[in-house]
Amino acid sequence: MSGNILGKRFVVVSFGESHGKCVGAVIDGCPAGLPFNEQDVQRHLDLRKPGTSEYYTPRLEPDRAEILSGVFNGYTTGAPIAIIVRNKDVDSGHYLEYYHRPRPGHADYVARAKYGGFNDWRGGGRFSGRVTISHVIAGSLAIKLLKHVLGIKVYAYTKSIGDIAVNEVTHKGLEERYSNPVRCPDPVIAKKMEEFLRGLIMRGDSIGGVVEAVAFNVPIGIGEPIFDGLEQDISKALFSIPGVKGVEFGAGFTSSRMRGSEFNDKPIIRGGAIKFESNNSGGIVGGVSNGMPIVVRVAFRPPSSIRIPQRTIDLETFEEVEVRVKGRHDPCIAPRAVPIVESTLAIVLADHAIRYGLIPPVLGKEHGKP
Amino acid sequence: MSGNILGKRFVVVSFGESHGKCVGAVIDGCPAGLPFNEQDVQRHLDLRKPGTSEYYTPRLEPDRAEILSGVFNGYTTGAPIAIIVRNKDVDSGHYLEYYHRPRPGHADYVARAKYGGFNDWRGGGRFSGRVTISHVIAGSLAIKLLKHVLGIKVYAYTKSIGDIAVNEVTHKGLEERYSNPVRCPDPVIAKKMEEFLRGLIMRGDSIGGVVEAVAFNVPIGIGEPIFDGLEQDISKALFSIPGVKGVEFGAGFTSSRMRGSEFNDKPIIRGGAIKFESNNSGGIVGGVSNGMPIVVRVAFRPPSSIRIPQRTIDLETFEEVEVRVKGRHDPCIAPRAVPIVESTLAIVLADHAIRYGLIPPVLGKEHGKP
Amino acid sequence: MSGNILGKRFVVVSFGESHGKCVGAVIDGCPAGLPFNEQDVQRHLDLRKPGTSEYYTPRLEPDRAEILSGVFNGYTTGAPIAIIVRNKDVDSGHYLEYYHRPRPGHADYVARAKYGGFNDWRGGGRFSGRVTISHVIAGSLAIKLLKHVLGIKVYAYTKSIGDIAVNEVTHKGLEERYSNPVRCPDPVIAKKMEEFLRGLIMRGDSIGGVVEAVAFNVPIGIGEPIFDGLEQDISKALFSIPGVKGVEFGAGFTSSRMRGSEFNDKPIIRGGAIKFESNNSGGIVGGVSNGMPIVVRVAFRPPSSIRIPQRTIDLETFEEVEVRVKGRHDPCIAPRAVPIVESTLAIVLADHAIRYGLIPPVLGKEHGKP
Amino acid sequence: MSGNILGKRFVVVSFGESHGKCVGAVIDGCPAGLPFNEQDVQRHLDLRKPGTSEYYTPRLEPDRAEILSGVFNGYTTGAPIAIIVRNKDVDSGHYLEYYHRPRPGHADYVARAKYGGFNDWRGGGRFSGRVTISHVIAGSLAIKLLKHVLGIKVYAYTKSIGDIAVNEVTHKGLEERYSNPVRCPDPVIAKKMEEFLRGLIMRGDSIGGVVEAVAFNVPIGIGEPIFDGLEQDISKALFSIPGVKGVEFGAGFTSSRMRGSEFNDKPIIRGGAIKFESNNSGGIVGGVSNGMPIVVRVAFRPPSSIRIPQRTIDLETFEEVEVRVKGRHDPCIAPRAVPIVESTLAIVLADHAIRYGLIPPVLGKEHGKP
Repeated sequence: MSGNILGKRFVVVSFGESHGKCVGAVIDGCPAGLPFNEQDVQRHLDLRKPGTSEYYTPRLEPDRAEILSGVFNGYTTGAPIAIIVRNKDVDSGHYLEYYHRPRPGHADYVARAKYGGFNDWRGGGRFSGRVTISHVIAGSLAIKLLKHVLGIKVYAYTKSIGDIAVNEVTHKGLEERYSNPVRCPDPVIAKKMEEFLRGLIMRGDSIGGVVEAVAFNVPIGIGEPIFDGLEQDISKALFSIPGVKGVEFGAGFTSSRMRGSEFNDKPIIRGGAIKFESNNSGGIVGGVSNGMPIVVRVAFRPPSSIRIPQRTIDLETFEEVEVRVKGRHDPCIAPRAVPIVESTLAIVLADHAIRYGLIPPVLGKEHGKP
Repeated sequence: MSGNILGKRFVVVSFGESHGKCVGAVIDGCPAGLPFNEQDVQRHLDLRKPGTSEYYTPRLEPDRAEILSGVFNGYTTGAPIAIIVRNKDVDSGHYLEYYHRPRPGHADYVARAKYGGFNDWRGGGRFSGRVTISHVIAGSLAIKLLKHVLGIKVYAYTKSIGDIAVNEVTHKGLEERYSNPVRCPDPVIAKKMEEFLRGLIMRGDSIGGVVEAVAFNVPIGIGEPIFDGLEQDISKALFSIPGVKGVEFGAGFTSSRMRGSEFNDKPIIRGGAIKFESNNSGGIVGGVSNGMPIVVRVAFRPPSSIRIPQRTIDLETFEEVEVRVKGRHDPCIAPRAVPIVESTLAIVLADHAIRYGLIPPVLGKEHGKP
Repeated sequence: MSGNILGKRFVVVSFGESHGKCVGAVIDGCPAGLPFNEQDVQRHLDLRKPGTSEYYTPRLEPDRAEILSGVFNGYTTGAPIAIIVRNKDVDSGHYLEYYHRPRPGHADYVARAKYGGFNDWRGGGRFSGRVTISHVIAGSLAIKLLKHVLGIKVYAYTKSIGDIAVNEVTHKGLEERYSNPVRCPDPVIAKKMEEFLRGLIMRGDSIGGVVEAVAFNVPIGIGEPIFDGLEQDISKALFSIPGVKGVEFGAGFTSSRMRGSEFNDKPIIRGGAIKFESNNSGGIVGGVSNGMPIVVRVAFRPPSSIRIPQRTIDLETFEEVEVRVKGRHDPCIAPRAVPIVESTLAIVLADHAIRYGLIPPVLGKEHGKP
Repeated sequence: MSGNILGKRFVVVSFGESHGKCVGAVIDGCPAGLPFNEQDVQRHLDLRKPGTSEYYTPRLEPDRAEILSGVFNGYTTGAPIAIIVRNKDVDSGHYLEYYHRPRPGHADYVARAKYGGFNDWRGGGRFSGRVTISHVIAGSLAIKLLKHVLGIKVYAYTKSIGDIAVNEVTHKGLEERYSNPVRCPDPVIAKKMEEFLRGLIMRGDSIGGVVEAVAFNVPIGIGEPIFDGLEQDISKALFSIPGVKGVEFGAGFTSSRMRGSEFNDKPIIRGGAIKFESNNSGGIVGGVSNGMPIVVRVAFRPPSSIRIPQRTIDLETFEEVEVRVKGRHDPCIAPRAVPIVESTLAIVLADHAIRYGLIPPVLGKEHGKP
């Protein structure tokens, strides 16, 4: 119970189910005076939206943001900001079957066990990837706040799909990451990924992937060790995205095979300021930002919904049966997760920037007299 | 500010510095009626203690636990439990140099920047690995609580050091994981690891490693999605251990290269109960325990302290200089981190077991009349 | 920033403004399996609603509850429950004047100062008594939960209006407290109060009052000292109701003039159980419920909105001016606050009952198969 | 469980029992760079200390503060500050009787019921007034922080003992409030109070009292409505002091008998700034400071420990018996509570000043090079 609240100063409350009336979020703690409107949310929701490419689930959702509170005359007021997205294209027909015959890999079984069968099973309910609309709603606010006050910019992109990975990423690639449906900053690799996904869709299978995120211009000193360090809170937030099975920073798991003499980032002077020669630490040392870009990678398992028939248990008869997941589904989580990862990273950075005193409670001078 | 508190129901407050008077923890939220005394803490502290093998830093610390509150007549009382470990073998001589000339890889520089130079720099202060005494103190209580009430058992062990990794782990190996100084459950691999570390010590370098932890007998249903799921809170807690750069559950990063048809764990009936054929999810689906063992891996970067001279910046003169880390240091974090990872995992499980109502506020019947 | 969240286990998030789109609440932490629907909320909202008597502000609000999430097939699901009430009868015409010329007693001035003028000033915005719709929404859930699981019943009533006070309260009076518009359990005193209010309305003035609340059947042991004791958390919650200037339990301020020999409640045996001869402690000792009814009184200052012209400062010209509050307003907060106080007390008791392990995460057996 | 933590940014963790090893506190969230040492704590502890007047319990406690962490070279470091006070004059002889035969008015009975008899009953354990050492420890830090950064000054004093009350208080009286043992700012009234207490001690009875606290120089805008407003959080904190049964701000309960035309504080211009003609609101409107002094009153019930024999229940035999509280005890809580109330108010103001961005994470320039 009561696990739907994230953060301490820029606090995100998530609510809503996949096939209920809406998915939404309340953000408590946003400073007053940030220019903000529904278009700011919509831009990010559109990047997350299903049905925009052949590699995404074709659920037809307009996903329109409605701001319910906390914004007045085009600015945030300092009051809690509630935003909802109504669900429209809801067809819960198949899901009763999965309530009885849980789909392998899905949360159908644990959800039913945990909530005594009272859980809203339609469309996976609260365990659907659709709940990440909450992340994107709050993230759209965090992204704007970070850029407006501190010039921080957050990028995520598809680093790999299965074995197809991008290695070198250019700044241009980052800026144009949304120009292809797999959100890969390298157009040549992107083509390979698309081709691979098409084959996979044909076979009715799915594949894992890795999303990498980078945050530029993060000032030194953000993060509150030892328990509320940046890696601590970023990883917690990222694992709330359905399908994440691993999170690593900088050299990450590779650092477990490195020597200290190669891993240690040496400080150097660049443009009069102290920077580091390498960034194996991913911009975070001791839980605190060190002024280098923050680099984090997120491993997504393959989507659980595959067309290939799978064995499961019928919870009423306790017999082994076969379940076939109907409909078309994302063959890989990574591409659609890109804006969600950006949002999630931004939420944590905003929370910590406020905690560290870098963002005041009121932005700018007193708002023009109405 | 204020980042030294972990958890919501089994709450751990960490305090103390490496070369200050002590390191300690307050645990708020432990039920009344758990048999507990200083020996229960000491057992785990001894496993964490420096100086017990040639592969550990030789700092001579007795690391004696002193319970200050919350325990009466051999039982927990329901009041907050404060426990401290006094620092004894303190030699802060070298550290003033590192305050001016930050050691690469260490938090010397970010600590000074974040706290305006007011930070206690002696021995790394609050950024020393010694703060994990807090984890072990609280973990010793959590481990006992979980076993006492729910029969949950938590094991960690060194999975790899550099490229030397253990693959198959037997139950016997797990039980005897502390029988060799590298805490590897496979004695043959352990020998190789020891040999490798000896060579490394000669060269004055260090190496990364991976610790794996497993929790058995975790009931289904623990974990509060979407933000306070198990993976979310376990990863947050594990990243608070100095040196961690990655956390993954079950198949982890490997799952990013798997197909749904191989990844999805199929439910099966075993002994009248529903279990799963495989455990790629690491015992957690949708942030909730599914009744399978919880499996998590933690990547440790190599220790930053190496004898090899390194380039750094003198913060007073802003010139490039060379710094040489004095003394002997752990060549690899993983072995000494094994009891810390166990403790940390247990803390989160205890917190969530209480949240999910599995542990009552009073254990057992009314305590015998005094 | 970020002060709109109450509680630790039955968590209430409030949002919305007086003249914005809606006022609402998210409740995170309600167990699964509680029968609940919009009528359960509506019943309480109707008691709080304006315009239902000549002593209430005549704003014509239907105040219809809309459940957005967390309820499925007539039961709570364990997911966060979001409920909104749309604002309808909005006329913000006068309020721009008050933004420039703050009304004495109102929050107009502090709101503008705190939020740099970005605050939504329409209808008092976030500082309007209308935000207590959040309390009633969450309270309707808490009241049902407490009654359903523990048989706890919560009553509030108007104890005094100005100098007119009720002394003896019968159980019948409590049950029928909503049968007169001043919500006074003594019909004779109620008549006097009504008469007094009519005179006050004529003069365009307002008056203070006291609301008393009683909770029956609260089990012994609820409340977590020393900081999260019952008095601590109940008082905090009650002071969130606009207009509250004092909170006292049991003998309250009167106890400051009592001797220990009269104040101390002596334990006695009643029906085989330990009760107390008197209830000067108001059912709470050391922050913990002692099995007696919880008794708390709340002092409301007079409503700030009065028709009598008042002196204020024009914030643009910095001159003393006169402001006249337009429209009709409640002459006394107490009567309309009665359901709000009941809700608020219930919210805190629900939160603490869950914390103390008295309410399980799932209510009843597994819900009938759909 | 887990109710011993107060605040969100200046976080106070309380631990320790009356007759255990010590009472202490951890403060997490104090900025770096505040000059602070054990004398700063000691000064306030000495004001709280027992045995310093004939009206206080004669327990002979030196009450020496020991700083365990978070302070280095005379300044706070930004790390958690742990401070303990060892218990010395411990005689638990009588208390076993009270475990079986709970003293009326005391928490003996609820403590045993709540914690299943595992509670440390010696000296009242965790329910002793001695736990307010935690408040004073943290308060000494908060008082210094508020004064150092914002010039805020906090005063409390005995407003009344029984029916003997002080009405007018001069600034000189405030400054010299500790010059008499009853901590009353009017020396004439103080004499009457002392005389009254002497008679009461003779009769073996006790009396209630009221403490008033005032905070000067609190900037406008502090307090986060609607749940974390100043009145909300101050009242919560004050009710954590054993013996408090009521809290009121400004006109408080008296405002329930006032008309709006008299209650509303009219804004005026004083010295170029907006102030208010009266202060019925006690410096807080809508949960937010309005720039006037914060005024709060706390009602203390009479101490439960009286020499007069009282009836109680023997919990082993379930028979009515008589209990006689041994030893000498405070005849009135108010005088000794004065420094505790000051500390508690300061703690909440410090927490909120940090939340509102008025106190930076580092105070002053970089600390002189060591």
